[in-house]
Amino acid sequence: MKKQVASALNRIRELCPLVHHITNSVTINDCANITLAIGASPVMADDENEVKEMVGLAKALVLNIGTLNSRTVHSMLIAGKRANELGIPVVLDPVGAGATNYRTMWAKRLFKELDISVIRGNASEIIAVSGAIGNTKGVDSASDTEAAVVCAKKLIEFKPCTVAVTGAIDIVMDDKSEIRLKNGTEMMKAVTGTGCMVSSLTGSFCGVGTQPFTAAVSALAVIGIAGELAKKSLEKDEAIGTFKARLFDYVHTMNERKIDFYMEAF
Amino acid sequence: MKKQVASALNRIRELCPLVHHITNSVTINDCANITLAIGASPVMADDENEVKEMVGLAKALVLNIGTLNSRTVHSMLIAGKRANELGIPVVLDPVGAGATNYRTMWAKRLFKELDISVIRGNASEIIAVSGAIGNTKGVDSASDTEAAVVCAKKLIEFKPCTVAVTGAIDIVMDDKSEIRLKNGTEMMKAVTGTGCMVSSLTGSFCGVGTQPFTAAVSALAVIGIAGELAKKSLEKDEAIGTFKARLFDYVHTMNERKIDFYMEAF
Amino acid sequence: MKKQVASALNRIRELCPLVHHITNSVTINDCANITLAIGASPVMADDENEVKEMVGLAKALVLNIGTLNSRTVHSMLIAGKRANELGIPVVLDPVGAGATNYRTMWAKRLFKELDISVIRGNASEIIAVSGAIGNTKGVDSASDTEAAVVCAKKLIEFKPCTVAVTGAIDIVMDDKSEIRLKNGTEMMKAVTGTGCMVSSLTGSFCGVGTQPFTAAVSALAVIGIAGELAKKSLEKDEAIGTFKARLFDYVHTMNERKIDFYMEAF
Repeated sequence: MKKQVASALNRIRELCPLVHHITNSVTINDCANITLAIGASPVMADDENEVKEMVGLAKALVLNIGTLNSRTVHSMLIAGKRANELGIPVVLDPVGAGATNYRTMWAKRLFKELDISVIRGNASEIIAVSGAIGNTKGVDSASDTEAAVVCAKKLIEFKPCTVAVTGAIDIVMDDKSEIRLKNGTEMMKAVTGTGCMVSSLTGSFCGVGTQPFTAAVSALAVIGIAGELAKKSLEKDEAIGTFKARLFDYVHTMNERKIDFYMEAF
Repeated sequence: MKKQVASALNRIRELCPLVHHITNSVTINDCANITLAIGASPVMADDENEVKEMVGLAKALVLNIGTLNSRTVHSMLIAGKRANELGIPVVLDPVGAGATNYRTMWAKRLFKELDISVIRGNASEIIAVSGAIGNTKGVDSASDTEAAVVCAKKLIEFKPCTVAVTGAIDIVMDDKSEIRLKNGTEMMKAVTGTGCMVSSLTGSFCGVGTQPFTAAVSALAVIGIAGELAKKSLEKDEAIGTFKARLFDYVHTMNERKIDFYMEAF
Repeated sequence: MKKQVASALNRIRELCPLVHHITNSVTINDCANITLAIGASPVMADDENEVKEMVGLAKALVLNIGTLNSRTVHSMLIAGKRANELGIPVVLDPVGAGATNYRTMWAKRLFKELDISVIRGNASEIIAVSGAIGNTKGVDSASDTEAAVVCAKKLIEFKPCTVAVTGAIDIVMDDKSEIRLKNGTEMMKAVTGTGCMVSSLTGSFCGVGTQPFTAAVSALAVIGIAGELAKKSLEKDEAIGTFKARLFDYVHTMNERKIDFYMEAF
């Protein structure tokens, strides 16, 4: 798997795929910069008058509902349907699904109405989206993570896709495989948008023809390793402000050697 | 007071309160990250279809009109009224009140229609909001700051709340007390959103049951001290870019010892 | 020219002009911070209920269509017309013109309906905007840059303005002069919004009465030099995250000596 990640990373840098985002206003700058850091090219356009045309220029589409509103959710549907028509991979980040009915309803609707290559969320978000297929099981599991794994399997059964459940341990699943990644650091939770950035990186990997499963694994490995190195680089009194800048540094300078040395998947 | 600030800070880190923001698009990322840096948990949601439900999950609500528009001001009213019903503290940041009629009108309306725990602004913003109660006095004072203090007193008389007038010296007032803080550095004015961040921190402090007066004082002390330490840490050629990252670092690593050593209130 | 740039920079720091932006949600924070870094004062307001009044308080207006939508494009027209009435210089950044019909149509419309002091874009954006005057020539040129120069000349003929075509070499033109600048580094392309920042800096220079041509040259020189110094300051493993912070540092600390030593125009 390490070889596949490294080779996909090289492909991004060679091809510089355009990744169309319809995303939230909190982390939109970070999503653009992480996309550039990995070597891809971001475009953020969310008006319904142009998303259909814009997605046609892109190699991947990232839909992130972090600050969804009645204007942008319709743009997401339009862009997503067009991406499906054109065979452009779609990454869905159902930020906050489960928190409010509106958010959960839209996360479920986007999942049901679109063909999604990768859906990435934390355990509670994945559980919430699985309500789209009437799922109420899994919630009695020993932990949120294990409940999310049960729900992810049901989502994949319902329609083939890759599900990435991110947390202390990241779990990536499709209908054939399952892998767990141990990279990353607690400190990433103290910076807003590290989850969104994983989705942007996943889109970047999908944009060069990487299989969705490998794309999600690659994104998680790259940002997880970058997070570890960023943390290790901190000096006295340096904390999340400096850490965030370094996170971008280490994604930007990620390479085969670091992936081979640091990636921990099992 | 130093003991109260330190103990409130510890409470944030223990309880990690959810702080719902309806805020501006300029500093929304910084507001989220400063909320994380202090140890609280931010959520930014501004669609009228979900704010009522979202605020019900939160421990505090921060309303910031920095880039208000006809869509979000209504969400602010809805969320604010719901917060009032539920007894959730509301922090109002009337960014730019006084600059345009639209902005001033909405700042006044939010103040009048909602129960506000803390209103934080610079002198001219506080003076502008005091127009809500037909105030035209105070404007002949020797300085803007002293005029704002007169206006703040009238606001507090009109309905009990804490007013924080921020500037070179920060002044926090309620119906019983008044305190002035000397922490901070000029450099904070060269980074956009330090005022917004104070409001987010005030919300974080309010979110763990800190009295509004103490919450505002705590927020100002923490960011002011962090600003001083950030400035002191700069090396040759480092300026506002590095300063901003360090500001987050020092809020993240703020502790009882630093508060005790550096806080200057009188 | 170096003397003019340095003297315009000093004037910004002395007068601290208010620069009204209607800009995109990706780089809005960076635009505000770069405006502060150079010594000007940013205000970001985009609601049609207040932009007419807000622009009246400003010394320059920056219109950036990076994430245009049906709400904000109308605000741009309103603010732009008011700026024209009041003789306030307008800077237009036609981000992504040429990518979608909607974007191209609005970039052209803003150029045609408003008096623009400076239009800044990369080669393909300038070529797209020149469609506003029925231009289809230039596209057969040896390079995109040379095609853009042809198009820029036609724009200037159509109505007097300054056009800045930015790229590896930046070209600034008006009806009398043309200058090429060699400052900058490839690394600036790996940070989102360096183009937007040039437009904000151009607005800041225009805001102190600098002639549009000189304003555009000054903005490009300042950020180009800052980029070179930022890159040179990087240590092992530091890359675009740290680079971005340093870019702000070096704009903030830009001075006559550095301009004189590093600026390369011909």
